[in-house]
Amino acid sequence: VLQAYRLLEDRGKIEARPQSGYYVRTRFWKPPAEPDISRPATTSTKVNIGDMVLRFTQQVMRPDVVPLGAAVPGPELLPTIALNRLAASIARRAPRASIGYDLPPGNERLRTQVAKHMFNAGCELGPDDIVTTCGGQEALGLCLRAVAKPGDTIAIESPTFFGTLQLIELLGMKALEIPTHPRNGVCLDAMRRAVDRNAMKACLFIPNYQNPLGCRTSDDCKKALLKMLAERQIPLIEDDIYGDLPLDGPRPKVCKAFDKHDLVLLCSSFSKTLAPGFRVGWCAPGKFRDDVIKLKLYSTLATATVPQMAIAEYLATGGYEHHLRKVRKAYGENIERMSRLVTEHFPAGTKLTRPAGGFVLWVELPAGADSMRLYDRALKLGISIAPGPIFSAKSKYANFVRLNCGLEWNDRVERAMETLGRLIEEGASA
Amino acid sequence: VLQAYRLLEDRGKIEARPQSGYYVRTRFWKPPAEPDISRPATTSTKVNIGDMVLRFTQQVMRPDVVPLGAAVPGPELLPTIALNRLAASIARRAPRASIGYDLPPGNERLRTQVAKHMFNAGCELGPDDIVTTCGGQEALGLCLRAVAKPGDTIAIESPTFFGTLQLIELLGMKALEIPTHPRNGVCLDAMRRAVDRNAMKACLFIPNYQNPLGCRTSDDCKKALLKMLAERQIPLIEDDIYGDLPLDGPRPKVCKAFDKHDLVLLCSSFSKTLAPGFRVGWCAPGKFRDDVIKLKLYSTLATATVPQMAIAEYLATGGYEHHLRKVRKAYGENIERMSRLVTEHFPAGTKLTRPAGGFVLWVELPAGADSMRLYDRALKLGISIAPGPIFSAKSKYANFVRLNCGLEWNDRVERAMETLGRLIEEGASA
Repeated sequence: VLQAYRLLEDRGKIEARPQSGYYVRTRFWKPPAEPDISRPATTSTKVNIGDMVLRFTQQVMRPDVVPLGAAVPGPELLPTIALNRLAASIARRAPRASIGYDLPPGNERLRTQVAKHMFNAGCELGPDDIVTTCGGQEALGLCLRAVAKPGDTIAIESPTFFGTLQLIELLGMKALEIPTHPRNGVCLDAMRRAVDRNAMKACLFIPNYQNPLGCRTSDDCKKALLKMLAERQIPLIEDDIYGDLPLDGPRPKVCKAFDKHDLVLLCSSFSKTLAPGFRVGWCAPGKFRDDVIKLKLYSTLATATVPQMAIAEYLATGGYEHHLRKVRKAYGENIERMSRLVTEHFPAGTKLTRPAGGFVLWVELPAGADSMRLYDRALKLGISIAPGPIFSAKSKYANFVRLNCGLEWNDRVERAMETLGRLIEEGASA
Repeated sequence: VLQAYRLLEDRGKIEARPQSGYYVRTRFWKPPAEPDISRPATTSTKVNIGDMVLRFTQQVMRPDVVPLGAAVPGPELLPTIALNRLAASIARRAPRASIGYDLPPGNERLRTQVAKHMFNAGCELGPDDIVTTCGGQEALGLCLRAVAKPGDTIAIESPTFFGTLQLIELLGMKALEIPTHPRNGVCLDAMRRAVDRNAMKACLFIPNYQNPLGCRTSDDCKKALLKMLAERQIPLIEDDIYGDLPLDGPRPKVCKAFDKHDLVLLCSSFSKTLAPGFRVGWCAPGKFRDDVIKLKLYSTLATATVPQMAIAEYLATGGYEHHLRKVRKAYGENIERMSRLVTEHFPAGTKLTRPAGGFVLWVELPAGADSMRLYDRALKLGISIAPGPIFSAKSKYANFVRLNCGLEWNDRVERAMETLGRLIEEGASA
């Protein structure tokens, strides 16, 4: 029966609704094919996408645009009032602590709650294994600096999060892009060849709900990857920022859960699930803990105190799991609607990922489409998208765009997708 | 008459009380002599004090010790309740903004207030000249990375703030220590020789209320310094974190006020005056603004939103100037009491700075005293101090200590000073 359901789903006759079941579609549609596995260059390269990414990051969060660009959750999906109430109450009850420094490794209650929460991801961490940071971006940067120096080569998925690429660029390191499958994650065969051929200093991967692909690496692949890296003592920086956001099923395990050699530096934050503006992230840097703490002390000294305390309190008492169920459902519905709009409005030949979690879609437009041009033209019409080239060290993916589905759905979004479709058609015929 | 007052003051017969006048001392004392100008090596050097500083930073803020080590204002001197109330009220009134990112250059209202405030320091800045940061430490690091690369030489005062030394160490840069006078600041003649002899990429100075010396560079010297640097296009990173804390007289001007060539990167924060745990700092990076913004984006993405909004509101409506008058008075009284205790309890031959602002004292113990040993022994007895060697790239100043006077005065402080005196005497005879 399940196979019959899947077949019907593949044909677009029915749709799965998370936590609910299969439903007959009101209007039949067949999702387009998925993109192929990526084929980046096999040599490492300096990253030089800084100005493009800078322009994108500064424009993409303008409040007046339909926010299909940045992977930022819509504020109406966040437990804003609860978090702000907790913050106010903590500051009132513990004024001295709230105004003072909370030096690295950071707020103890938060570290305890994070360790507890990560038990769901297969990790047996204690509070002392965790270092809190000013968001996930600081965590990634501290871990990178702890394991590598300027000139060193870092293996990354292709495509990958532009913030990682920017870090590599600004730290004067080199990127080695590994072929990555839009459903299975980083290709282990390619990885093995890369490890044999290159002086790889570290890897920085997003095994759970990769950004922008949305894929989850299986537990078997995670184990095989770690085994390969352990043989060569290559550290893995694991970005798990989307790990709490499966579209279906349980919270996946992290690589860190299978890490027998203390080589995984696990990084995450609450920016995708609770409060981007609180700037609270964390890492579990394994044997690199002392280096990470030293780097943290002299980069930002400490993370803001009250935001850490408020998130700790929310994790302890606020119903984080309940909140996650709610946003996962919203993201799942949005991804389904957005996929349908891509199918309706984008040209024939467009390909589309089937994310397993997170809230972004990676769209391959027909060959010849220019997503940088599309980005500029769409922005003028009040729509932001993320153009493909910012996800590559070598500005590949010219005909790809990433779409954010972590927003509040409304008519503006539907109209924006229509407009994008029109712009792409125009671009193709121009 | 004024000269007579000063003479009596020098002899310890009377004391000046800020905002009040001269008073006959209840108990006569003569402050010890001031330390001489420093004489660091004339060549640049790699910095290698990391583990010493790490140990210090992690131990020094233990809540159970008498806090003479870290230069952190006592929480009872801070407007904690007012700030926390503002934060709560802002989060209630603007929930969406409070939970969202506030991307670089950072919160506009805060940038407007900072620009306005710095008019008092002789600066004509607009909101767009300012970039907000996760505390002063991030501001210094971003500015350093914007103007110099690994291997480059940075001129610094000697002694100087260990956080600066650590930044230089972690960024793989070299430090060139410039002789610095405990009352007049960096020696311009020595600076000229250093500039002529060395490939100096940038300077990082604390012209107002230098840490640990407490001295203020005169406006004439500031102008002369800038002229010298402009001739060679050498940028100056100006750390003005203590600038709002003169012990007497008006708020001094910053070098930035005399900067005709846009070469000054002015850095500061609210950690010494309002709220260390809010982690709100800022910089005005002149022509390096775009680089600083790019580095900020990929170091921490953004500064926590509500802390920025709360400080902006406090600057606009909370009576910041009134608060500053209050803490300056407290710091002045503490410095006076602490100087007297040094005179009473420390061995003959001890020398002592006369800070013009800020809230630290720099104490030169008799030759042979070992401040690292004193640090360890004092910590065991529940007293923290800052040992001299962490203020030098080459671990000089073995017989110096820095004492924090930004604390709530009580009997424990007086007893701690007695104990320190005893430990120093014992160390000297051991």
